[in-house]
Amino acid sequence: MELALATDLYQLTMMQGYFRAGQHRREAVFDLFFRELPWGNGFAIWCGLEQAADYVERLRFQADDIAYLRSLGRFDPDFLEALASFRFTGDIAAIPEGSVVFPHEPLLRVRAPIWEAQLLETTLLAILNHQTLIATKAARVVQAAGGDEVLEFGLRRAQGLESGLWGTRAAMIGGCAATSNVLAGKRLGVPVRGTHSHSWVMAFPSELDAFRAYAQAAPEACVLLVDTYDTLRSGVPNAIQVARELEQAGHRLAAIRLDSGDLAYLSQDARRQLDDAGLSYVRIIGSGDLDEDAIADLKAQGARIDVWGVGTRLITGWGQPALGGVYKLAAIGPVEGAGQVPTERPHGSAAPHMGRVPHLSPVLKASDTAEKTTNPGVKQVYRFYDRRAGIALADLIALADEPIPEAGPFEIFDPVHTWKRKTLKEYVVWPLLTPLFAGGRRVAPSPGLEAIRQRVRGELARLWPEYRRLRNPKRYIVDLSYELWQLKDRLLRAVTHGARRMEVPRPE
Amino acid sequence: MELALATDLYQLTMMQGYFRAGQHRREAVFDLFFRELPWGNGFAIWCGLEQAADYVERLRFQADDIAYLRSLGRFDPDFLEALASFRFTGDIAAIPEGSVVFPHEPLLRVRAPIWEAQLLETTLLAILNHQTLIATKAARVVQAAGGDEVLEFGLRRAQGLESGLWGTRAAMIGGCAATSNVLAGKRLGVPVRGTHSHSWVMAFPSELDAFRAYAQAAPEACVLLVDTYDTLRSGVPNAIQVARELEQAGHRLAAIRLDSGDLAYLSQDARRQLDDAGLSYVRIIGSGDLDEDAIADLKAQGARIDVWGVGTRLITGWGQPALGGVYKLAAIGPVEGAGQVPTERPHGSAAPHMGRVPHLSPVLKASDTAEKTTNPGVKQVYRFYDRRAGIALADLIALADEPIPEAGPFEIFDPVHTWKRKTLKEYVVWPLLTPLFAGGRRVAPSPGLEAIRQRVRGELARLWPEYRRLRNPKRYIVDLSYELWQLKDRLLRAVTHGARRMEVPRPE
Repeated sequence: MELALATDLYQLTMMQGYFRAGQHRREAVFDLFFRELPWGNGFAIWCGLEQAADYVERLRFQADDIAYLRSLGRFDPDFLEALASFRFTGDIAAIPEGSVVFPHEPLLRVRAPIWEAQLLETTLLAILNHQTLIATKAARVVQAAGGDEVLEFGLRRAQGLESGLWGTRAAMIGGCAATSNVLAGKRLGVPVRGTHSHSWVMAFPSELDAFRAYAQAAPEACVLLVDTYDTLRSGVPNAIQVARELEQAGHRLAAIRLDSGDLAYLSQDARRQLDDAGLSYVRIIGSGDLDEDAIADLKAQGARIDVWGVGTRLITGWGQPALGGVYKLAAIGPVEGAGQVPTERPHGSAAPHMGRVPHLSPVLKASDTAEKTTNPGVKQVYRFYDRRAGIALADLIALADEPIPEAGPFEIFDPVHTWKRKTLKEYVVWPLLTPLFAGGRRVAPSPGLEAIRQRVRGELARLWPEYRRLRNPKRYIVDLSYELWQLKDRLLRAVTHGARRMEVPRPE
Repeated sequence: MELALATDLYQLTMMQGYFRAGQHRREAVFDLFFRELPWGNGFAIWCGLEQAADYVERLRFQADDIAYLRSLGRFDPDFLEALASFRFTGDIAAIPEGSVVFPHEPLLRVRAPIWEAQLLETTLLAILNHQTLIATKAARVVQAAGGDEVLEFGLRRAQGLESGLWGTRAAMIGGCAATSNVLAGKRLGVPVRGTHSHSWVMAFPSELDAFRAYAQAAPEACVLLVDTYDTLRSGVPNAIQVARELEQAGHRLAAIRLDSGDLAYLSQDARRQLDDAGLSYVRIIGSGDLDEDAIADLKAQGARIDVWGVGTRLITGWGQPALGGVYKLAAIGPVEGAGQVPTERPHGSAAPHMGRVPHLSPVLKASDTAEKTTNPGVKQVYRFYDRRAGIALADLIALADEPIPEAGPFEIFDPVHTWKRKTLKEYVVWPLLTPLFAGGRRVAPSPGLEAIRQRVRGELARLWPEYRRLRNPKRYIVDLSYELWQLKDRLLRAVTHGARRMEVPRPE
């Protein structure tokens, strides 16, 4: 896919605007974040960084892209010529993929000439919004399933084939054990699983014939779908018959699958029939319009399901099918030609300059609601853990260059209800944003899918259960540092006093 | 993308099962249909056929696909060898893309050797479920907007980049006027539109400076975003100032865009300010979390919006992000080697044999609910139009080879509530399923996007308004022919009398 054009037209129009004004190399810092957690969840699983990094690395305008843009009749020849040699030369810091993240935290921070930073917006959002949504949904489903395996079965209901592929990756990161998606298996190296469909049963003279033929075709990992005709009077007895025949051939029936009807009642009766037949090793897979709520309710009713196949509602993020991630300007360098021209960094320079923040003016976008007013400046996110238990205590969004005490006591406060205060004592603190690109070059290699999955497990284990509750979780603390809060307050006052220019000098 | 593997594992397992049993060339007929309309809509716009046909045409297993399958250790060498030369050799009939369609109607019918027909299931469903969903959503949004233009702005919230591309195509088919998605513009030849973002305004010393710079960069199609600071006291007055400057340079400001706040109140006041300044030609674009309900409500409140930019809720099918399309076995040929071996048709044979139905046994999948019991046999869908008004009267699902009277009176009846009868008199009747593939070759060329868009407009114009109502539309009649109804009834009786084999001889 021609990634350079997978963007909104206005990014290119603005790029040309900056280019014409001679301001396209002016430095800018953008934050990518979301404001609200989906489905009332207590956290999100940050996901999609691998595809996002790959996009940035490979970002080039091809000759036919430029020819197309030329055909629109709204771009200048010199701008189009500049696009032909365009590449990303800036810095990107990001929270590692698979981390637990919260609203308002900068998840990814781009610092680059403004025309470069502007171009990344739409594409990064499309990738990261989607995969973070699905990974978070998967984490909910997996949590509802307790220790049971969850299988991703959603490809046929995904929003297109690529959405199925990347959605499966996100579902695996969120904790699924395997997928039915063969392409995901090939591309991502994840385990693939499957059974058979009703049509298989219907293609044979009888259900028993169909089961026998399937057991012959897949004796090692045989799963029989038992609800084509009558689950308890036909499907399960026939599966038991075939399980016995498999035993005689030295194999074991892996599982039966229930795909319709009341899974609580059916699974209990099926379990009893299997156990009575001495087939307690045969597992029961449940599927059919499942999501985290259905699984939680079925488990509460004593369903005897061992493995959950989840399709439509996982792969689409059912209930809230988009994460509202945004990408907002946080700081901007001096006007080019105004005496403080930033040195152009050659492509490939590996020197990150995240901490320096020279000449950058913080900016914010005001809004009627505190929730929608952005946090200005070049920022870092810190997570405080209890020193002994290793459990997360709170997150703090701070300016990137302000010192954070390595030992407590350290008082933090709610940025809106400022009287809500909390003193952190025996803690360790970690910065979450780490360099991903420096001077246009990727500086952090891909950790690989298994490491990302492990990170998710580790992060969730370090989160108190009250934040992981499926419904009405406790709200995790994400505060602003006093310095950031002051800066934001000052900028907001400047706005409300009628100043239309939102830039003010940094404090001190 | 390696399309052959963009499927569920069980399709390949079943293919191997049929292959091992020597039954893979047994003839089978599958129907693709959905059971329920999304969002309580009165119809769906059938969409995605172009990508679906392209998939079927290009369907091949590449060497690395086969190598991957071999690595799973569950496929036989001779089966994998057969996959290497696999191609689709069957027939496909489909309703033309852009048609108005209804629940239970076979939208696409595959007749092919069973291992081929089986393989198509997941991939066709992923493509067609997605695009039909989004085209239908777009039709709802466009209808809510009355005659106003609707622009597709959703890429950043799409479920991945490819979902954004195909979703945009579907949105254009559903009636959108243009998109912000540049790649869609390039690939599909659809018009692209755009404005600028808040960050553009924030990057300049003042809003006025930002507007002037943007007008200079895009004087011909200049749209100014006026809600960065204060819409009515700053944004609109500054836009008016720039509009006057543009007039002096011989240009006209195209529009302003409102992206937040109460769009009813803001648009009315902005309209008044623009009109008072003699700028009645400047249009107002509204955007921000819009969908069909928000647009209908804003219009009812007298909002002065001329153009609607719709993003997240259109591109994701918000409210019901998946169409539950299914693919079900409807008829099956005799067992291979049982004396009635069908002649193998060579690849590329152009002879369609849709009407013949030799030796095919109809099958159905029973269910506790009438809605979920499938319709057996090789079928056709007919649409009856009023002979004078040209308006659609009803649809009829019938067996493909039964005669349908070309002139009335013709009595049809509800397949569940059989006492509900309707006599069609002065009508013309059209079969909806037409050949798309015959003997593995595509026989219907792509009509092209503009023709598909025209078909949508024509089809909607031939649908009474009561079926197009956004909320609580009247239910359009889709009945079964008496012959099909009888066949279904007979098969169902066979099931409920305990027969586990669902095949019975065809009537007559």
